[in-house]
Amino acid sequence: MSSVRPLFVVAGIGNGTGTGAATARLFAKSGYRVALISRGPEHLQKLAAELNQAGGEVATFPLKDYTPASIKSAFASLKSHWPTSPLRVALFNAAYGIWKPFLEVTEDELRESIDTNIMAAFAFARAALLEITKLDLEAPNEGGVAGDARKRGTLIFTGATAAIRGNVTTSAFAAGKFGVRALSQSLAKEFGKQNIHVAHSIIDGNIMTDRTKSRRNDPTWEANQDARLHPDAIAKSYMHLVKQDSSAWTWEIDLRPAHETW
Amino acid sequence: MSSVRPLFVVAGIGNGTGTGAATARLFAKSGYRVALISRGPEHLQKLAAELNQAGGEVATFPLKDYTPASIKSAFASLKSHWPTSPLRVALFNAAYGIWKPFLEVTEDELRESIDTNIMAAFAFARAALLEITKLDLEAPNEGGVAGDARKRGTLIFTGATAAIRGNVTTSAFAAGKFGVRALSQSLAKEFGKQNIHVAHSIIDGNIMTDRTKSRRNDPTWEANQDARLHPDAIAKSYMHLVKQDSSAWTWEIDLRPAHETW
Amino acid sequence: MSSVRPLFVVAGIGNGTGTGAATARLFAKSGYRVALISRGPEHLQKLAAELNQAGGEVATFPLKDYTPASIKSAFASLKSHWPTSPLRVALFNAAYGIWKPFLEVTEDELRESIDTNIMAAFAFARAALLEITKLDLEAPNEGGVAGDARKRGTLIFTGATAAIRGNVTTSAFAAGKFGVRALSQSLAKEFGKQNIHVAHSIIDGNIMTDRTKSRRNDPTWEANQDARLHPDAIAKSYMHLVKQDSSAWTWEIDLRPAHETW
Amino acid sequence: MSSVRPLFVVAGIGNGTGTGAATARLFAKSGYRVALISRGPEHLQKLAAELNQAGGEVATFPLKDYTPASIKSAFASLKSHWPTSPLRVALFNAAYGIWKPFLEVTEDELRESIDTNIMAAFAFARAALLEITKLDLEAPNEGGVAGDARKRGTLIFTGATAAIRGNVTTSAFAAGKFGVRALSQSLAKEFGKQNIHVAHSIIDGNIMTDRTKSRRNDPTWEANQDARLHPDAIAKSYMHLVKQDSSAWTWEIDLRPAHETW
Repeated sequence: MSSVRPLFVVAGIGNGTGTGAATARLFAKSGYRVALISRGPEHLQKLAAELNQAGGEVATFPLKDYTPASIKSAFASLKSHWPTSPLRVALFNAAYGIWKPFLEVTEDELRESIDTNIMAAFAFARAALLEITKLDLEAPNEGGVAGDARKRGTLIFTGATAAIRGNVTTSAFAAGKFGVRALSQSLAKEFGKQNIHVAHSIIDGNIMTDRTKSRRNDPTWEANQDARLHPDAIAKSYMHLVKQDSSAWTWEIDLRPAHETW
Repeated sequence: MSSVRPLFVVAGIGNGTGTGAATARLFAKSGYRVALISRGPEHLQKLAAELNQAGGEVATFPLKDYTPASIKSAFASLKSHWPTSPLRVALFNAAYGIWKPFLEVTEDELRESIDTNIMAAFAFARAALLEITKLDLEAPNEGGVAGDARKRGTLIFTGATAAIRGNVTTSAFAAGKFGVRALSQSLAKEFGKQNIHVAHSIIDGNIMTDRTKSRRNDPTWEANQDARLHPDAIAKSYMHLVKQDSSAWTWEIDLRPAHETW
Repeated sequence: MSSVRPLFVVAGIGNGTGTGAATARLFAKSGYRVALISRGPEHLQKLAAELNQAGGEVATFPLKDYTPASIKSAFASLKSHWPTSPLRVALFNAAYGIWKPFLEVTEDELRESIDTNIMAAFAFARAALLEITKLDLEAPNEGGVAGDARKRGTLIFTGATAAIRGNVTTSAFAAGKFGVRALSQSLAKEFGKQNIHVAHSIIDGNIMTDRTKSRRNDPTWEANQDARLHPDAIAKSYMHLVKQDSSAWTWEIDLRPAHETW
Repeated sequence: MSSVRPLFVVAGIGNGTGTGAATARLFAKSGYRVALISRGPEHLQKLAAELNQAGGEVATFPLKDYTPASIKSAFASLKSHWPTSPLRVALFNAAYGIWKPFLEVTEDELRESIDTNIMAAFAFARAALLEITKLDLEAPNEGGVAGDARKRGTLIFTGATAAIRGNVTTSAFAAGKFGVRALSQSLAKEFGKQNIHVAHSIIDGNIMTDRTKSRRNDPTWEANQDARLHPDAIAKSYMHLVKQDSSAWTWEIDLRPAHETW
């Protein structure tokens, strides 16, 4: 049956301690092959090594940038790496965060935000959907992991508070995140009819990663499981979305810590 | 351990073939005691008999109406029935649907809609929260079912498309459903800090129940698992909300069939 | 031409220093007959005296409460007072504000909030629409005031931040305000086709009234025209809504001070 | 007083029969100098000739494209053309509409949509705000036109249904329009404190222009003033936004025909 072991692909794993990595970890553990697409080859390697050691089947596809050409090329590589694995789940988790007063945002920064947030999301969605639309509905227990969800596949976009609310220092970031949300809603409506599930998450709070830990340097915050998002908790909700059968799909889910003020 | 077996309470089970009943069934199967609150004692009895026969521990608390006094009294009865069971999950699933041109809605119908949708939701929330706020965080494996979710409890409201969009024949219904959504968001913000998870679902499509089946009389629709919501699928997402740990809670989830136009 | 002088009716003028009174003032000045419906006969009298002295044609219809029966009766009185005046503009401005932790809200307070906010809005809308639906499109320069807006009439609801966002102490108030917003959207969709314009405003900030002035007791705030809503400024936007012709109607307008944080 | 005659600048006038042109016409008539920025020099010339003949003071600043460099250059030209005129009102009305199934959208089309919709909006906003932030509050009766609105200036973005809802053929267009809405909300919050009013309109329906008339070729539609948006009606609401004083500003206004289904 290993020929039908399904494939999970994620773009955007940062330094390997956030949402992208946690979701990769959960899907690897759950029987999916995992394709990691991201900048920062050393972080990719480290995460792949960890997951492979734990019994996963993980390969890396480093990007030099998030241009459509680079993303297309990464998908070509992963197809030739696993030619028969059906691409069942794709997570676009890349983001370019920028928080600056509007008049201080340079044209380059804006371009980077628009390209990494929106252009890359479109290119990723295109590459993933070109694969998923070719598939049959997943078989019951495909590769030991799938259920009877009557899906061709699932495409998830990680969003943020800035996907639904602009704020004083978020013009460039919010424009990118609003744009991705628009894409995800359009795709959910267009591809639902082909049994392809497209979803969007609103991460409304701070995720605990190496970066946020070092930026905050606040052990109390780290220790307070009710005050920050744990990447593993986000991954579990993503897995729930993947398992939803076609009778009741969620397009949008918000996720925030219990003690968050909102 | 049976003394700590947790309690699931649901208000609104209609004729026992929809969301309330499906969720009761899933929670009963998952080790919860189940309290059924609803009008229509015969439907309550039938559902309780089915679940008890399947090994559940289910009791019924019939209402003559959805007034605050009746709801309060039902909670008093269930507390005296199971004095030591911690009320961990409460689902408000009652609704009064009315679709009529505005000028044809009578004052009585409006009153019924406001009372069953909003007043009852407040009374249910109050009775449930008076119990849940008294509890400690649920213990790992409480009664064999709970995890380590760091919750006092979960309170879910079933909403509808009419909770977020008014339409030509929905003035009275939408007013009720918007009102319940306002309540659920207010409570999510107020009680999150006490580790009580409040959530709202937007059911955006037709649920397959005995009633919708007989009203539509359309075997094609019934057979098309991608075109109508199955109550069991909704129940699974409700269970997911209950299992979310306090690091990443969802306030609002939308649920619709894959082939729905929206 | 005085036989066709159009009628403006407003429900909810508080102590005569807020939005309802300011709008009445502007419409009286603009050539409308004005019907004031509210509790507090002394405030009604004082406002009517002021407007009549300034050349207005204003009558008062005091309510003992905001029940549907009382509202219906007030409309009957105003019809017999001005039997030939076409009711062209109706503003529902009544509200019952309550800010309390959820568990401290009594059943009576909740009932009052639901009744004054929602039941009264329905009764007011019904009484107004029963009149407006009988009218022809307003004539150009009707009574010297109307334009060529191709309307039968306009129905406006005053909303609040709590109409779109629940918060920790707003469960009862937000339920009421969400409900009114649902009503207004439903009516906008249903009656637009009959050239009746239904609109909703989101007042997002503090209005300067006698009450807010005495509660705050903060001369700096009062003097800062950029920091609080002036009722006259709200009235101007309501007049703009009334003047919009049927080619481009606004259902919802938000209004907040320039310096508001939101 | 002509030295303080205020300046209105608009980007995006299409073929001179839509919203941009109608707004330019209204502001020219109301005493503003008008700077027209757009592609299509012949349309610009024709509109400028019409407005100048009618007594306006209008100049054209043709763009070869909507790149930030081109927009910046157009603003430099208009500043040297009218060095002392305070730029009080700026309208970003440019858009790149594209309605296609997602997999048929080419990378070039997506780039064009993102660049014309988002990058250009940012560049336009930047150029306008660099001017407006330098101004004092407008004087009462500045150049004969301004009131006492306590503003430095007003920046309006024309949006669309696609700014709030993605749909099956709107992925690229909605991403652009969502992005502009994010920008406008961020700027409203950031620059409100400096008495600069930023607003966004949701045009929810078809505007009657030469293009829509020839595409539809439906005289009934054209003649039905309740079924399509007239550009002049939109312009009037934009003028209302400009006149709102700082006590009660609107960020977002929706505009649709009376008979629109929504």
